[in-house]
Amino acid sequence: MASQKRGRQSFQLNRPAVITHWASVAGKKESEGPLGHTFDLTSQDAYFGQKTWEQGEKQMQKLALETLAKKAGLRQQEFDLVFSGDLLNQCIGSSFTLRNMGIPHLGLYGACSTMAESLLLASMTVGGGFGDKVVAMTSSHFASSERQYRFPLGYGGQRTPTAQWTVTGSGAALVCSEGKGPRITGCTIGTVTDLGIKDANNMGAAMAPAAYATIRAHFTDMGVGPEDFDLIVTGDLGQLGKEMLLELAKRDGLSLGGKLTDCGNLVFDNTVQDVHAGGSGCGCSAVTLCGYLLGQLNTGKLKKILFCGTGALLSPTSTQQGLPIPGVCHGIAITGGR
Amino acid sequence: MASQKRGRQSFQLNRPAVITHWASVAGKKESEGPLGHTFDLTSQDAYFGQKTWEQGEKQMQKLALETLAKKAGLRQQEFDLVFSGDLLNQCIGSSFTLRNMGIPHLGLYGACSTMAESLLLASMTVGGGFGDKVVAMTSSHFASSERQYRFPLGYGGQRTPTAQWTVTGSGAALVCSEGKGPRITGCTIGTVTDLGIKDANNMGAAMAPAAYATIRAHFTDMGVGPEDFDLIVTGDLGQLGKEMLLELAKRDGLSLGGKLTDCGNLVFDNTVQDVHAGGSGCGCSAVTLCGYLLGQLNTGKLKKILFCGTGALLSPTSTQQGLPIPGVCHGIAITGGR
Repeated sequence: MASQKRGRQSFQLNRPAVITHWASVAGKKESEGPLGHTFDLTSQDAYFGQKTWEQGEKQMQKLALETLAKKAGLRQQEFDLVFSGDLLNQCIGSSFTLRNMGIPHLGLYGACSTMAESLLLASMTVGGGFGDKVVAMTSSHFASSERQYRFPLGYGGQRTPTAQWTVTGSGAALVCSEGKGPRITGCTIGTVTDLGIKDANNMGAAMAPAAYATIRAHFTDMGVGPEDFDLIVTGDLGQLGKEMLLELAKRDGLSLGGKLTDCGNLVFDNTVQDVHAGGSGCGCSAVTLCGYLLGQLNTGKLKKILFCGTGALLSPTSTQQGLPIPGVCHGIAITGGR
Repeated sequence: MASQKRGRQSFQLNRPAVITHWASVAGKKESEGPLGHTFDLTSQDAYFGQKTWEQGEKQMQKLALETLAKKAGLRQQEFDLVFSGDLLNQCIGSSFTLRNMGIPHLGLYGACSTMAESLLLASMTVGGGFGDKVVAMTSSHFASSERQYRFPLGYGGQRTPTAQWTVTGSGAALVCSEGKGPRITGCTIGTVTDLGIKDANNMGAAMAPAAYATIRAHFTDMGVGPEDFDLIVTGDLGQLGKEMLLELAKRDGLSLGGKLTDCGNLVFDNTVQDVHAGGSGCGCSAVTLCGYLLGQLNTGKLKKILFCGTGALLSPTSTQQGLPIPGVCHGIAITGGR
């Protein structure tokens, strides 16, 4: 069998799903952060040469896909399938990226968990023999997110200390049935988890229970623990969400053994970049994975990580209607390439 | 191998993916249409007992999932995975349906192609051995769509003759590795196709090129033609989009041989229900498939269909910014159960 179902939420890949290449594109603020040197392309122009922020976000995905093809020595039309999605209403960042490209496309909505969700589905596609050279991609943009989810930027609203800063960036990874590179060995599909958090300015807290549920499910289903990983990397819980996740684990008698880190804390330097609780957005875990993390796995500096994309499944409408914020998290176990 | 890649966009399933059960929930107008008798549940209340239309839409998905479980003799927690998405911003219909249900969930955005996209991914999951008892589900709601995409209902705006009427309904299908029922034999993944249509009140025209591209790709990749199907059923092109698809095929020298029909034309009676160019929305193809079509396949009245979910990948923002409407279409070949 190409795969083996493990427990209720997980599967192990018996045929390889190799991440042979990856690419990242990021904005100015991200280029000034601690991971700035790991991105393939950065731009000082928030519009990425386009007329609107939304089209700028699309442009980042276009550049990420182009760069990925270049690094892989492929024409973009040789990609079998692109799984992608973003935070913009109706995922127009992804749709417009792929417009008339002639590349088969399946659109996703997993909020900020999209990098993990797309990787999971890409590894299923490759592992099951449904396609090869499958791309997992996503993006977010600070300015397009602010105006869609919060306030017009020109309004200059103050941000609460619990708020996170949406990363301007796009990441794309190429998953293949053969080749060299980090390998996806198993995945855990998340359940929608909601402990009643209603503060849309504290999404780390809303996502922490989902992250914990998925990490616990991965450990149970796969018969592993924190000792089997060099790092457990959550998507974008930020500082507060990360602390909450540690607390949830502790109450359950589970120590994450100093292995936990979060892309929202890696991508910005909180002490000087004024991002409050850290980075967020689909692009946060995407650029951190498709730059720093896969780089470290590829050179053997990291041997095995559990990459846990986290998403807050709210909308401005659900918040205005007084509803809480459901969270989701998908876990991807990735082993180093050497 | 569980599957065999065929051509650029398609795959054939060698392990069965059987649609063992299906369920549909629909609104008042849909219950009065020609397919009214094929729905499991209908409601005279547009709110489905909830406080808002958005929560009403969520409630339809909840009822569809409940009904599906009942028909299958399962507890909902026995579903391995739910693939779902909807038209609401950030897909809150789907997220809130699965909130705290403990069912693994992967969220999709394929606009009105979501029933086909979710079926395609469910058949990959089952065919590849990544899971069993996988649900494909979606919904749309006339009132939640109107206020999000067009005008407040209270405004009473006139509709153009090319406009379609968003179906209030939800459909859910259960895909399993064994059992009795219609079988998914192969799928074709669509590419994002855009011939420059900018009229958001003529989405049939925007989607027709994508539908034609996918039907042609399916025929080429799988080595089949119109003669191999009892019906070729598009998602929601409506009357105008259907005519345009026939024209595109004709120009290419391909006759669809009187096999083409469209869920947007099946679900309402245009002559008396005042829906202009026909039905639309994720729910349109969902309730038509998860009622009439699977019923006919199950009893052997239909032997083989090509179910082509069509989606218009626009957003109000992209329309306001003067951009055209990209379309996508995924094709699912389904063989009768007997």
